Amino acid sequence: MGRVTASTRLTRVRIRDGKLYHSERPDTVAVEEPLDIRLNGQQLSMTMRTPGHDVELIHGFLHAEGYITNREDVREARYCDGAVVEDDSGFERNTYNVMDFTTRTITTAPVITKPFLTSSACGVCGSASIDQVTKRVRHEFVPTFAMQPSRLLRAQRELGDGQAAFSKTGGVHAAALLTPEGERLVLREDVGRHNAVDKVIGWALLEDRLPLSDTVLLVSSRASFEIVQKAAMAGIGLIACVSAPSSLAIDTAARLGITLCGFVRGEDDIDGRFNVYCGIERIDLSGSGS
Amino acid sequence: MGRVTASTRLTRVRIRDGKLYHSERPDTVAVEEPLDIRLNGQQLSMTMRTPGHDVELIHGFLHAEGYITNREDVREARYCDGAVVEDDSGFERNTYNVMDFTTRTITTAPVITKPFLTSSACGVCGSASIDQVTKRVRHEFVPTFAMQPSRLLRAQRELGDGQAAFSKTGGVHAAALLTPEGERLVLREDVGRHNAVDKVIGWALLEDRLPLSDTVLLVSSRASFEIVQKAAMAGIGLIACVSAPSSLAIDTAARLGITLCGFVRGEDDIDGRFNVYCGIERIDLSGSGS
Repeated sequence: MGRVTASTRLTRVRIRDGKLYHSERPDTVAVEEPLDIRLNGQQLSMTMRTPGHDVELIHGFLHAEGYITNREDVREARYCDGAVVEDDSGFERNTYNVMDFTTRTITTAPVITKPFLTSSACGVCGSASIDQVTKRVRHEFVPTFAMQPSRLLRAQRELGDGQAAFSKTGGVHAAALLTPEGERLVLREDVGRHNAVDKVIGWALLEDRLPLSDTVLLVSSRASFEIVQKAAMAGIGLIACVSAPSSLAIDTAARLGITLCGFVRGEDDIDGRFNVYCGIERIDLSGSGS
Repeated sequence: MGRVTASTRLTRVRIRDGKLYHSERPDTVAVEEPLDIRLNGQQLSMTMRTPGHDVELIHGFLHAEGYITNREDVREARYCDGAVVEDDSGFERNTYNVMDFTTRTITTAPVITKPFLTSSACGVCGSASIDQVTKRVRHEFVPTFAMQPSRLLRAQRELGDGQAAFSKTGGVHAAALLTPEGERLVLREDVGRHNAVDKVIGWALLEDRLPLSDTVLLVSSRASFEIVQKAAMAGIGLIACVSAPSSLAIDTAARLGITLCGFVRGEDDIDGRFNVYCGIERIDLSGSGS
């Protein structure tokens, strides 16, 4: 299926010796798509994964959850015929994102009467997941600020200073909320990157600061669909991650009008670089860089 | 509560100029504990998190899932009185791992009739999560091999060579199964590290190779409880991660008799270093290092 990586266009921003440079260029990102795992006809789980080796993935998942012990336990594994979308030419094509496993001993999947947002996209395709978020988001993502690149880079350099647990263990993620001027409002750490994001958004909610339109979310990790979804629900206009974003994270941010920056790396006191995948209007490219 | 980091003891293994050195030393790791989130008296979700700022975390989670829109929607947030364990002196103490939120508009949590392994530990404490895995695991973790440090380091250096998607995107995790001699059996990539592990274990199951007692699991990421749990279900004797393990990952591996190595970093052709958190008997410290 060749859907492991996808092409994208980005703006590369660089400050070198205090001078600002930027250029557009093509790039490659890792694909993230929903996989709807069905067991004996019932929905069991929804995971965001990179397509490919889905049969192995589900065998491994079912084994870890105790549903099967060996290959003989699975009678049939197949992509659902009905999981189709219409392509640009009007032809139906299978999404290869919904898979049904039939086991020899009929095990019933847990019945979830009100599925979570993250598990309710029906796994049809990435677009369906984006539609789901779009429907739930109550905010307009109108750009109200343009952040200076030097301030984003400084905030990234300072992220480590605020990470008490990371400095001791090297093993936790951080999420921070910043003003458009780069001032840190709050920083939280957690072994799970989604938890760190929940903590800072929960802090803002308790401080009556929602929606966070004039706020930047900086995360020490990659940006997945889940991170963008959480930020979108809180009305955050700019998401910056230290590592790579996934294809679905970019597509979701782009559809909603959220700015997404990746590989944000401050190099020394003034220099550094990052990529802008969408929403370039919230990055101020007019300045000198320092 | 001061449960963000925990003390541990480890064996540091280092090869420098082809010579093997090792020493025991204390270290600090990030704490991972279950958090059982209850909504209006019903279990809603179980997440593995670093304790602290739980009230913020749950507010953020409920907001992302669409259960609340502002702080007024929450009537009460409290740790459950009944979530207690007996300490070494026989006194009962609250685990602070079960929290009940009551909302103004009564929202019913999804009813999960047969919870997943990962969500069924009831969030009482880390030990309960470990007990749960111990009960389900069908294998004895008797050491059958001792791996040479140089071979583990070489496999880590070669991990990148096998990562087609990572080299293009810088944004995916890898999991690989190795023989005790360091030969790679299979490598899979995914945006989610747990998916990459499911894929390699699923591969092994389809190849009728389970249990994987004589096999090493190498992951490009951190090692969380979930990774150790998946490896344990497959009978894997040695887990090696490129980044840090969590407290609960170490405790689970130690209880089961699995070897857990972290910060595995090959530095050049022959040198490198890693930490052994438990199960040192599967690491061969008798050799010269090359």
